[in-house]
Amino acid sequence: MITLAAGNGGTMGHEEVTVFFLSLAILLGLARFLGELARKYRQPSVLGEILAGVLLGPTVLGYINHDWFTFLFPDTGATAIAFHGLVTMSVALLLLVAGMEVDLSVALKQGKAAIFVSIAGVALPFFMGSSLAYGLPDMFNYDGGKDLLPFALFVGIGLSITALPVIAKILMDLNMLKSDIGMLIMAAAMINDLIGWIGFAVILALIQPAVDAAGQAAAAPTVGLLGTMGLTLLFIGLMLTVGRLFFHRVLPFVQIHTSWPGGVLSFVLVVALLCAALTEYIGIHSIFGAFIAGVAMGDSHHLRERTRDNIHQFITNIFAPIFFASIGLGVNFVEGFNIWLVLLVLSIALVGKIGGCYLGARAAGMQVRERWAVGFGMAAQGAMGIILGQLALNQGLITESLFVAIVIMALVTSLLSGPAMERTMQREIKHTLGSYLPEKNVIAKLSALETRYAIKEMSELAAENTKLPMETIDDAVWRREQIMHTGLPHGIAVPHARLANIEKPVVILARSIKGVDFDAPDGEKARIILMLLTPLHDATAQIELLSLVAQVFDDPETRQRVRSANKATEMLAAISLAESHLGEHGSSPRIPEADEA
Amino acid sequence: MITLAAGNGGTMGHEEVTVFFLSLAILLGLARFLGELARKYRQPSVLGEILAGVLLGPTVLGYINHDWFTFLFPDTGATAIAFHGLVTMSVALLLLVAGMEVDLSVALKQGKAAIFVSIAGVALPFFMGSSLAYGLPDMFNYDGGKDLLPFALFVGIGLSITALPVIAKILMDLNMLKSDIGMLIMAAAMINDLIGWIGFAVILALIQPAVDAAGQAAAAPTVGLLGTMGLTLLFIGLMLTVGRLFFHRVLPFVQIHTSWPGGVLSFVLVVALLCAALTEYIGIHSIFGAFIAGVAMGDSHHLRERTRDNIHQFITNIFAPIFFASIGLGVNFVEGFNIWLVLLVLSIALVGKIGGCYLGARAAGMQVRERWAVGFGMAAQGAMGIILGQLALNQGLITESLFVAIVIMALVTSLLSGPAMERTMQREIKHTLGSYLPEKNVIAKLSALETRYAIKEMSELAAENTKLPMETIDDAVWRREQIMHTGLPHGIAVPHARLANIEKPVVILARSIKGVDFDAPDGEKARIILMLLTPLHDATAQIELLSLVAQVFDDPETRQRVRSANKATEMLAAISLAESHLGEHGSSPRIPEADEA
Repeated sequence: MITLAAGNGGTMGHEEVTVFFLSLAILLGLARFLGELARKYRQPSVLGEILAGVLLGPTVLGYINHDWFTFLFPDTGATAIAFHGLVTMSVALLLLVAGMEVDLSVALKQGKAAIFVSIAGVALPFFMGSSLAYGLPDMFNYDGGKDLLPFALFVGIGLSITALPVIAKILMDLNMLKSDIGMLIMAAAMINDLIGWIGFAVILALIQPAVDAAGQAAAAPTVGLLGTMGLTLLFIGLMLTVGRLFFHRVLPFVQIHTSWPGGVLSFVLVVALLCAALTEYIGIHSIFGAFIAGVAMGDSHHLRERTRDNIHQFITNIFAPIFFASIGLGVNFVEGFNIWLVLLVLSIALVGKIGGCYLGARAAGMQVRERWAVGFGMAAQGAMGIILGQLALNQGLITESLFVAIVIMALVTSLLSGPAMERTMQREIKHTLGSYLPEKNVIAKLSALETRYAIKEMSELAAENTKLPMETIDDAVWRREQIMHTGLPHGIAVPHARLANIEKPVVILARSIKGVDFDAPDGEKARIILMLLTPLHDATAQIELLSLVAQVFDDPETRQRVRSANKATEMLAAISLAESHLGEHGSSPRIPEADEA
Repeated sequence: MITLAAGNGGTMGHEEVTVFFLSLAILLGLARFLGELARKYRQPSVLGEILAGVLLGPTVLGYINHDWFTFLFPDTGATAIAFHGLVTMSVALLLLVAGMEVDLSVALKQGKAAIFVSIAGVALPFFMGSSLAYGLPDMFNYDGGKDLLPFALFVGIGLSITALPVIAKILMDLNMLKSDIGMLIMAAAMINDLIGWIGFAVILALIQPAVDAAGQAAAAPTVGLLGTMGLTLLFIGLMLTVGRLFFHRVLPFVQIHTSWPGGVLSFVLVVALLCAALTEYIGIHSIFGAFIAGVAMGDSHHLRERTRDNIHQFITNIFAPIFFASIGLGVNFVEGFNIWLVLLVLSIALVGKIGGCYLGARAAGMQVRERWAVGFGMAAQGAMGIILGQLALNQGLITESLFVAIVIMALVTSLLSGPAMERTMQREIKHTLGSYLPEKNVIAKLSALETRYAIKEMSELAAENTKLPMETIDDAVWRREQIMHTGLPHGIAVPHARLANIEKPVVILARSIKGVDFDAPDGEKARIILMLLTPLHDATAQIELLSLVAQVFDDPETRQRVRSANKATEMLAAISLAESHLGEHGSSPRIPEADEA
């Protein structure tokens, strides 16, 4: 129970509202500014966002002028509570978005490779982290106040989680997201995330009664330890089976009968808030409910890319920065910094995760180069590790020093992952897209109006030109397309497959006047479709082709020229013109999106 | 100062977080559901959103089961404060969006008609309301506790404000937003809003010290009454002059140097939060700062339609429903209901506003039919009246009964406005678009790539076919275009003008292969451009043509057919085919947007 000295206990007063808006503006402004700066240097924006909190928190501002710090970010009173409410909601919504990126059907269709990689990628760092923490707790700054078992389990989980959003971003930057290996990494990361969060929910259930006894403001949940664990598993089980089917049925209904995209937007948020309340009630954290709600709903292909993107924009640009910046407000990064602990945590995370994934990829029969790429890709811990750490810190499970080490580890792994993967996979681009495109491989006017038939029509031409059976090509490409659509923004699509019986890459280019829906992120129909067929044994050919496509069609002029060309030769001329310009400038011209809008 | 019984005074406990998420989910879910229901019956969604609060508040849920009500929506404690923080932020962001809809340059370019209508439309209801309230305070349920003057002034302002977003929505529904009379109504409503809010800020400054003395939790602002008023006027003056220019310069910079649209989104929000903090500090309400920030930034054409739309989506679908539903939580609509007070408030609002605008329009030399349309259009009080009333209620300035009367008046005027305007302006549609389009009026392939030249090229053809001087047409259309762009979604644009020397409407149809940028809300370039020239004396011809265009090109098939036609006759055939279908079904087919995405 809370009592207030002033009369009006349920609202903020005049000065509190002032401070609330002011601190929110400063925090969000600095976080976004530094986040953008990080992006400019091709680093994850979470780096800048956390730095903003460190600058405004006890580490820097509190050190320079303690009065300003406590004025802006008081730790008691109505402003603090209102701020806490906003941050609590922010992190729940952030996890909703993270959950929406988990596409269970994609993950499961990737088959044993994804399962091997994700399980080995969780098991090794979990085993290393938890056994070391159990055996040598002092090295992890264990304060002895809590049971050792949950502490050790948490260290294991904290070091084995993977950051799906960061990984997706890195793959996107490398033009690898829609490649086979990119999809495998995404699928493995999804399964990994799911395992990690379920494991964390179990730990929370383990420690919950102890924490409540230790002075939480509210009553302990009445359901007890077994009840919490049982209800958690029941919730997950129901949401990922019945719930998934339910949302899959209900979302189109909502889409048709409400304003668009506002109706779906609200529906998704309401479900997430309800699940958050439910999981908080049964004794695990609210964000877990939001995450599972995201998984259950995001899975439905009825939640179109554009709706997702809409939810995404606001949450990643407003709520996520508020949350990440708020981390620095509660922790002193200088006092908490312990170099040995940082190095320890970092090496377990790197060795465990990269090693585990490497072994998993080997067991799945992947090539050496691919094994490393998967390992480096999965190593990025990013936001998820930090969120877990923050919860553990709030629950009194870990000390500030360990938390600081986890934050630094998460940032360092996220920074390393991209360049390491790039170095492993990307080879010098020697070819041009034009060199793969003889005129006979071009369909100047595609007849098909639907995805299924577009792929058939293009496969027929490919079969003619390669002497392979048409069914082989069509089957492989269509199977791939069903797993995850290959639409890119601005009306480009890249259906593709790796085939056993071809010697070198084959590209089929088709132009559609009316457009074919490949479920692109911007909702545009594809009018320029490139079918990319690469040899099964050559893992990097596909990635090379995808980057060539991205480079050439990044330029709006080129897209327009290809779309409005009169015949096949003109289309090819536009492509070769674009590639000659690329050669001049040495690299792909990045045209800011704003110029096109 | 606030003291907390529990140890952790700056955060919510386990149970409080549960209730926070649960009550938020229920409130938002019901508000959006009823809001969508209202829209289905072509009513403003705010009606359903407020009803949700009434159902969940003391009026209904509190009456049925008081325990459930206080459990879900406690009025003290951490949950209440967190909720209050969220609602405070919601209403500030809502006012930001409302402010962004005020386009000062458009309003000022409308010239004396807009100024006459808006000033007369404020002056008459303000005079009627404040003099009646001053002379007969008891009739307005005046409780005698506060000074009579601010009370009377508030009643005047509360009855003279206009709801820009509701009006924009009504005009859009009637296909009148881009017509001359629609623009005039919008411009007058903008000026009206600005006057109303500045007036309200002055009243707040007047009463602020008294309220603080009466037991607000925070200290009174140190600046005093004159200081508050001076700072308020200084703030408004600077923001609308230097600030406007500043944002106009800075926005393109932000747009280019940050991720898009996330960078601009955050920038706009941060500025709004800073201004909210500033106005709260100087002693007027935070939402006033957010509103003026919206006006200053929204004015810049560098804030493209798509960015606005992005901010809009999240705020109107999430924050606005939360705010409007929360109104009902604090007020008992049954206890506060007083039929005489409702009728009194309603009649002053209707007579004052419609009469004032009618007189203003007459002074500006408008036709009788147009005067009534302007009056009915401006009558919608909608959200703004309610927000003002809520503030006045919180400040203890008015009683619950008067507040309930204001809410009902705001809803009723919003419901009446649309049908009344429709009945005044819309005549039976007797013509078809095809009947205005002989083949000689069609440009099958527009050469111009820019708006300026597209209008010139089309004006040349119009001049040829009408024997009017080309400059007359071009000047009128271009002047109109500069005030507000005429791009519609899905690649349609409708540049237009009313001309003194033509007898009957003239339509020029042009197709652009590469598209011309008319700044459409969805960012698409216009590929089908219809120039609508109507006689100056015939006020409704333009509205008729605009609805014909909307009906015909609502159908994606028709748009596609016109865009891919080989020559002018095929384009006209596609239009006449569409119109024959319209005839069959009796009315325009409304294709849900979701089907196209």
